[in-house]
Amino acid sequence: MREVFVIGSGMIPFGRFPQLMLEDFAGKAVSEALSDSGVDRKQIGMAVFSTSNGGRVAGQRVLRELSLTGMPIVNVENACAGGGTSLHVGWMAVASGLHDVVLVVGMEKMEKGLIPPNPGEYESFLGKTLPAKYALRASKHMQRYGLTKEQLAMVSVKNHRAGALNPNAHYQEEVTLEQVLLSRPVAEPLTLLQCCPTTDGAAALIIASAEVARRVGQKPVRIAASVLKSGIYRNPAKGQSASDDDLAERAGLAAYEMAGMQPSDVNVAEVHDAFTIGEILAYENLGFCPRGEGGRLVEEGVTSLGGRLPVNPSGGRLSLGHPLGATGVAQVVELSRQLQARSGARQVGGAKTALAHVQGGSTPGIGTGAATVHILTV
Amino acid sequence: MREVFVIGSGMIPFGRFPQLMLEDFAGKAVSEALSDSGVDRKQIGMAVFSTSNGGRVAGQRVLRELSLTGMPIVNVENACAGGGTSLHVGWMAVASGLHDVVLVVGMEKMEKGLIPPNPGEYESFLGKTLPAKYALRASKHMQRYGLTKEQLAMVSVKNHRAGALNPNAHYQEEVTLEQVLLSRPVAEPLTLLQCCPTTDGAAALIIASAEVARRVGQKPVRIAASVLKSGIYRNPAKGQSASDDDLAERAGLAAYEMAGMQPSDVNVAEVHDAFTIGEILAYENLGFCPRGEGGRLVEEGVTSLGGRLPVNPSGGRLSLGHPLGATGVAQVVELSRQLQARSGARQVGGAKTALAHVQGGSTPGIGTGAATVHILTV
Repeated sequence: MREVFVIGSGMIPFGRFPQLMLEDFAGKAVSEALSDSGVDRKQIGMAVFSTSNGGRVAGQRVLRELSLTGMPIVNVENACAGGGTSLHVGWMAVASGLHDVVLVVGMEKMEKGLIPPNPGEYESFLGKTLPAKYALRASKHMQRYGLTKEQLAMVSVKNHRAGALNPNAHYQEEVTLEQVLLSRPVAEPLTLLQCCPTTDGAAALIIASAEVARRVGQKPVRIAASVLKSGIYRNPAKGQSASDDDLAERAGLAAYEMAGMQPSDVNVAEVHDAFTIGEILAYENLGFCPRGEGGRLVEEGVTSLGGRLPVNPSGGRLSLGHPLGATGVAQVVELSRQLQARSGARQVGGAKTALAHVQGGSTPGIGTGAATVHILTV
Repeated sequence: MREVFVIGSGMIPFGRFPQLMLEDFAGKAVSEALSDSGVDRKQIGMAVFSTSNGGRVAGQRVLRELSLTGMPIVNVENACAGGGTSLHVGWMAVASGLHDVVLVVGMEKMEKGLIPPNPGEYESFLGKTLPAKYALRASKHMQRYGLTKEQLAMVSVKNHRAGALNPNAHYQEEVTLEQVLLSRPVAEPLTLLQCCPTTDGAAALIIASAEVARRVGQKPVRIAASVLKSGIYRNPAKGQSASDDDLAERAGLAAYEMAGMQPSDVNVAEVHDAFTIGEILAYENLGFCPRGEGGRLVEEGVTSLGGRLPVNPSGGRLSLGHPLGATGVAQVVELSRQLQARSGARQVGGAKTALAHVQGGSTPGIGTGAATVHILTV
């Protein structure tokens, strides 16, 4: 299989666009990625889109606004991991030798604040929604490892501080520990400022073979690993209990193996902080610290901008926002620009290796879902 | 890129299952494909699902019922071409060398009889729905090439005759030319029996590398070409007019080139007969006859079972049914079994090469959408 490079990136400032359709804003991310890459639009061999709410042939609808059609267009869905999945499919297309240049787009217009459960997700209908599920994971971590409410809240403080430096973030305001702890309770111990906002957005990447990457303007960022996994099903009727930690852990291990790297090689990361506890668990699942020590990692500033391993320099889901299908692509936009030293006030100095992690779609108590881990390097 | 083979196939009898969820029936097609292939379920390296209405992480929800999780699962959407698109993505995964065995599943529960237009599809809201659009294509063909109402109706008679021999078809009844012509008008000149019914269904394939294919029970069917294209956008404001014929034609040409074949090499085909005119146009777009002679082809019996080039031996969309995301996979289930000489009363004798074509998702008058063409050979 061939090496694959990110050669261009684009995204729109995330926010709420109630008056706009997906077609009205997603194309802007595509145009930016195209001009960033310097490739001619006719070179695009394939386009892969990610959206959960976008309706039928969403990618075609967006690209026709740019008169950019004719090539293969694939629309993928994988809940919160959709963006990472679209990159994985695009990566396969280049790695296989089938296409030299592929456009990858994540986009979402969030119609409702809460993600409605699928039919058959009885536990969700009974109240085990995403915030409730993450709250249970937080409570368990507190009980088992002594994670504190303050440590949890520090994730939000840290990510809002980074987001305040990101002109594309939905909420560009710092928040204090007190503000986070005293914001409206959503699902104990998670308060409002520990839950991602409802955000619309779009992000795009141009990925290409080594040969194309050599000929373009931006410093190419190599995709050292692209891994997609689904969670392992647990049958509650047999007393088994689902673990989303296992899903991220397996995806991470496979990615490190593919890249020939260790967690200690990572200089900067974007992880799935849809809720503060998600980031704490990601530290542990991805090997950034031993199990149970995620709270200490954020408290000690290791994952802050300026720390040893800055996590979510974009502001993360908590501040940048989390338009489902867009997130996995937006993470790689952020990280590839970090590796190209183009991140302005939030630049992580000397970063050579970056990791992006998204996961979602698991049914409370039952498991499955999807996670992707991508490792990027310059 | 490596050669890819179909080594197992499964599908459920298509029909209406108002009391069932997707999770209740789609897994049966997967189980049948698995046991048909003879591969161990642990060998499945990746699964690619196609659905338009299935909601979030639909593939994961289906596979957890079979406790078949952990591997990468991709959900794709491409309207009527979704099934073909999922096969294309699965094919990339095997062809690239990333996975040796991939599960491809098409499935759909059609909630509503009519496919609701996407926001922004103003012409559809004003009445240019799919039946109306195909009716206009039929009228144009009549005017330009002298296609007759009877020739159109013969497509339905032919496909229902084949479907009557298919235990998996939704409508297993022959219809007469008079019944077709006198059935309720839907969009002049198309009558009810010239429009596909509203059908739920699921179909699955196991595809694999040559090395795996050598070691399993069924006669392997080689995928000689896998092509996905989107339509070229036309701007009505500039006086341009969209053509879905061009989309199928480009996909067909690319597939013949990839396979190193000609239209005359095809012994049996499944084409997109969501409406009778769709099959007539497919004959011409795929090079089975010159432009304008599609009506004559069906009238002369060339495309009937027993003819020189039987088309839609499954009964096609008109009789087998057309569960959006399932169709492209169901076509390849039918064709791979035809090439393996397992098709019972509707067997096409001595078939060595088969072609599958689906397309859809184009916006009336504007174009784009998606089409796939697969060429299979033994």
